[in-house]
Amino acid sequence: MTSRIANAALRAKVMDAQAAAAMIESGTTLGMSGFTGSGYPKAVPMALAARIEAEHAAGRPFRVRVWTGASTGPELDGALAKANGIEFRLPYNSDPVAREKINRGEMEYFDMHLSQVAPMAWQGLLGPLDVAVVEVAGIREDGALIPSSSVGNNKTWLDRAQKVILEVNRWQNPAMEGMHDIYYGTHLPPDRVPIPLVRPDDRIGSPYFSCDPERIVAIVETDTPDRNLPFAAPDAAALAIAGHLLEFFRHEVARGRLPASLLPIQSGVGNVANAVLTGLVDAPFENMTAYTEVIQDGMLDLLDAGKLRVASATSFSLSPEAAARINADMARYRDRMILRPQEISNHPELIRRLGCIAMNGMIEADIYGSVNSTHVMGSRIQNGIGGSGDFARNAFVSIFMTPSTAKGGAISAIVPQVPHVDHIAQDVQVIVTEQGLADLRGLSPKQRAALIIERCAHPAYRPMLADYYDRARAGSYGLQSPSLLNEALSWHQRFIETGSMLR
Amino acid sequence: MTSRIANAALRAKVMDAQAAAAMIESGTTLGMSGFTGSGYPKAVPMALAARIEAEHAAGRPFRVRVWTGASTGPELDGALAKANGIEFRLPYNSDPVAREKINRGEMEYFDMHLSQVAPMAWQGLLGPLDVAVVEVAGIREDGALIPSSSVGNNKTWLDRAQKVILEVNRWQNPAMEGMHDIYYGTHLPPDRVPIPLVRPDDRIGSPYFSCDPERIVAIVETDTPDRNLPFAAPDAAALAIAGHLLEFFRHEVARGRLPASLLPIQSGVGNVANAVLTGLVDAPFENMTAYTEVIQDGMLDLLDAGKLRVASATSFSLSPEAAARINADMARYRDRMILRPQEISNHPELIRRLGCIAMNGMIEADIYGSVNSTHVMGSRIQNGIGGSGDFARNAFVSIFMTPSTAKGGAISAIVPQVPHVDHIAQDVQVIVTEQGLADLRGLSPKQRAALIIERCAHPAYRPMLADYYDRARAGSYGLQSPSLLNEALSWHQRFIETGSMLR
Repeated sequence: MTSRIANAALRAKVMDAQAAAAMIESGTTLGMSGFTGSGYPKAVPMALAARIEAEHAAGRPFRVRVWTGASTGPELDGALAKANGIEFRLPYNSDPVAREKINRGEMEYFDMHLSQVAPMAWQGLLGPLDVAVVEVAGIREDGALIPSSSVGNNKTWLDRAQKVILEVNRWQNPAMEGMHDIYYGTHLPPDRVPIPLVRPDDRIGSPYFSCDPERIVAIVETDTPDRNLPFAAPDAAALAIAGHLLEFFRHEVARGRLPASLLPIQSGVGNVANAVLTGLVDAPFENMTAYTEVIQDGMLDLLDAGKLRVASATSFSLSPEAAARINADMARYRDRMILRPQEISNHPELIRRLGCIAMNGMIEADIYGSVNSTHVMGSRIQNGIGGSGDFARNAFVSIFMTPSTAKGGAISAIVPQVPHVDHIAQDVQVIVTEQGLADLRGLSPKQRAALIIERCAHPAYRPMLADYYDRARAGSYGLQSPSLLNEALSWHQRFIETGSMLR
Repeated sequence: MTSRIANAALRAKVMDAQAAAAMIESGTTLGMSGFTGSGYPKAVPMALAARIEAEHAAGRPFRVRVWTGASTGPELDGALAKANGIEFRLPYNSDPVAREKINRGEMEYFDMHLSQVAPMAWQGLLGPLDVAVVEVAGIREDGALIPSSSVGNNKTWLDRAQKVILEVNRWQNPAMEGMHDIYYGTHLPPDRVPIPLVRPDDRIGSPYFSCDPERIVAIVETDTPDRNLPFAAPDAAALAIAGHLLEFFRHEVARGRLPASLLPIQSGVGNVANAVLTGLVDAPFENMTAYTEVIQDGMLDLLDAGKLRVASATSFSLSPEAAARINADMARYRDRMILRPQEISNHPELIRRLGCIAMNGMIEADIYGSVNSTHVMGSRIQNGIGGSGDFARNAFVSIFMTPSTAKGGAISAIVPQVPHVDHIAQDVQVIVTEQGLADLRGLSPKQRAALIIERCAHPAYRPMLADYYDRARAGSYGLQSPSLLNEALSWHQRFIETGSMLR
């Protein structure tokens, strides 16, 4: 097998994962690659987890602080969390083992806006970064690093870490070379300048990372696939949500409030998001673009159908079938896909300038349109806010969507008051459930409440919401956003006590 | 008296306020000038209020929709609200009569991010704009309009209204001419481009508004001062907050995390904010800049002391004494002050690029650092979110400050859970009360809670908060952000029922 390491000096630093993991001490802060299960290191974290377990078995404490791009895979978050090896984690997690540790109070978790991780690291606010562990697709003769299937915060980790450990993953398609756009123009104020990107298609950086070879202390070769999970076929609720949304887009174009090619699409991950993208294949919008966090299955369909001109993101998030499809034809896809650092894919300046159509999922919304994206029953973290705050506040249209109930109807996604707020009502312009769509733009809180209850709530909960809202208008301290403080969170308490929000 | 209207064709449109107000029908949407009591029209709204009262007395309905820059004065919001003449209001209000109507449910109020008003108007989401009523300081021979003591959304109102009514106010200092910077480069996507501002000092537009003279239907001459309110001398709490904050700045400079001249300052209005600015006069920071919404008394002191190089804002907000001081010496101040449209003063792109130090007041924060800036007891609006969301999310450092108690100790500004969220914990990096300062950057929710209770809570409430937090950690559904849903809002309910949050 040909080596992916074309630089001889760096080839001399190849070692096995155990030897590389032995360079990591307890208390180390690690900057790891990885975003939505793509491009994360696979071998070194596993070896580190084994080392931590051995140390713990010998009665010695060993924990590390872990920074990433976003979620990773079982070999990283899963293995390290299982070994009780993570003391502190940022900025996003979807691993079930890590989630359980966090919600038992055994692991500190700082859930951050994804655009702010790199700038805050440069500000020095997250503490020093000891070791970067970054997966790449190859190393060129001149030492330049070919990025892998996600970019995330890798540029920042490579620039700032005292020591760098690389994983060169042969599983990654070498034809990805040239698709990345690593912007090297960021600074700390007062030296920041306009970011020269005016269309999602623009390339403003380099296809490679550069990294001082002196700081590269180890290189590990791997051949392990990304955590690519199968997508479930969209269910009736997802299809209904997609239908409402496509109708909304048609209506906005007809009224001249959106261009005929729409505006750059941002789409969260998951079943509902994918149903919307799939629905766009047959919709009458041509020459579309995406400026988003992840390239997912539905975007491949849009590219293949010739509807999507370009998809700009920071990562792939694909099913195994879509990964195989893209890998079989990478040279063709490569020109219409761009992966960028997440501080650029999620940058407020660019999202506002491009005028993104932001579509994000949520756990629940309240009758005034505040959204909880993260904390089940207000205290138990699900994943994290991710990039939803970067996009929702700066979007041209900010859309949140969810089925109107969960757990077989025991939970309403529309509640009197959300017990945790991730998106304030001002940043939530459109809410969609399978019941319908509420366009909240330009409305006061009471106007919003009437519309959300009527259009979005499930019929089993609509009378309960209307009853609460009626009584709140009669008995509230003030009437800008009427509420009954004794009852506002009672639906969640009832769920905890009885297993259902229904009375 | 010389006319301030140098253009003869426009001089022919001068009429009295009653005649101008007669051009406004019931149901009209009005785009008015005005921001924090500066530069709002004074004569036409009063005449309109009188007309509305006469119509109501005759049994005829008459209400209008009012858009402004931010708060105005008693002649506008006060008079129109008193006449029951406002059906719908955006984006910010501080008038006590209007506030009372809103909280009685007699007036719809859409409380918006100030940077988003102009773009949303251009998107067509707020409905058509019928009539602009804009105060100017004068009209040049070529028809260009000399802006007044606030800019706000005036460019957008003048561009978009079907009819324009101008008030030319002789009270405004003619030497203001040249201090404004009206940027004419905004567009709707996909045509947006980088805003070419890289320092607070940069001028990127015109000193004048242009307006198609065909649409100018009336001009009214006035001679009425702005609503300039006296400042109370800072009390002990304000001075203590300022002291903690100045110590924090010194510490950040010493650690190399802020430049020696700091970064552009954004400061909310009021007593505490002014105490901080006054404190900066004697602090060891030179060559400072301000990039903020309003130029207030404390900034004049900083300019006079040679500490502040330039102050960029969208409006003045001065005491009568400071207004007299600035008016006596406008030609000297003019070169170091810039008033811009509020979509530029508050633009996320620029706030992030410049790296503003955002300092805003608040009603209360909870133990995890979510902030309520607007709704007393969760339902009764005080003023509005204003520009705090524009600045807090995009700032280099986002600071919120308040005395630790209100109403003589009956209200704690640190509570188990805020009943309304304007700023999510991720956007609240530093909290300051007279008790102390909590630097929350990089911390998980539980780390934040410990620090906020210890540093910021008043001693009368600290044991109650610690007790709640202890029991929440023992009995919460999840332990990422422990809470007791039955108790989380009970302090506010107790205040409503007993007049105090204390047990």
